[in-house]
Amino acid sequence: MIANTPKPPYYAVIFSSLKTASDLKGYEAMAIEMDRLVQVQPGYLGHESAREGLGITVSYWNSLEAISNWKKVSEHLSAQTMGKSTWYQAYKTRICRVERDYGFENECSIII
Amino acid sequence: MIANTPKPPYYAVIFSSLKTASDLKGYEAMAIEMDRLVQVQPGYLGHESAREGLGITVSYWNSLEAISNWKKVSEHLSAQTMGKSTWYQAYKTRICRVERDYGFENECSIII
Repeated sequence: MIANTPKPPYYAVIFSSLKTASDLKGYEAMAIEMDRLVQVQPGYLGHESAREGLGITVSYWNSLEAISNWKKVSEHLSAQTMGKSTWYQAYKTRICRVERDYGFENECSIII
Repeated sequence: MIANTPKPPYYAVIFSSLKTASDLKGYEAMAIEMDRLVQVQPGYLGHESAREGLGITVSYWNSLEAISNWKKVSEHLSAQTMGKSTWYQAYKTRICRVERDYGFENECSIII
């Protein structure tokens, strides 16, 4: 779903990745665990994720310090190590300051 | 693919959307046309896209002015109007300044 973030400014981490064919079960278990863990991090505001060949996960944070702390959580460090050695062909992480946002919601339509 | 962006700072537009079930052919034709058009906009640096229920498209730009100019391109304005009336259940657009990035590429793995 679309993350329900507060009024800017806040921060976004855009994580774009291409997977390998290796250890798909291990990858899935890690993804579920990271999804659970990230949500209890101080300063976490929400995240959005989609994969269609290329995977894009955007997480939202209230400060750069919160992002830095999440990067250093031990389970997340292990995931980063396995990501490089096994799961990812390539990735790019971009740390951003969200300056402005706007949106739209139509209450009458059917989601597919 | 992962966009080959320059050294930060640069700008990102994160467009997160949920589609309706309406006019899927019209939507697809628009998406192809916008994909073509965006690439010839001044200041465009690349984009990444994935949909898995939620759709996430991130486009990268060299300035806020370039983002503002792309928003006002007439074909893009028509797409925005149709987006609200027909194609999207909801969307959120976030304008960001990319402060920092880092990445990884493994030349030995097979992409899936």
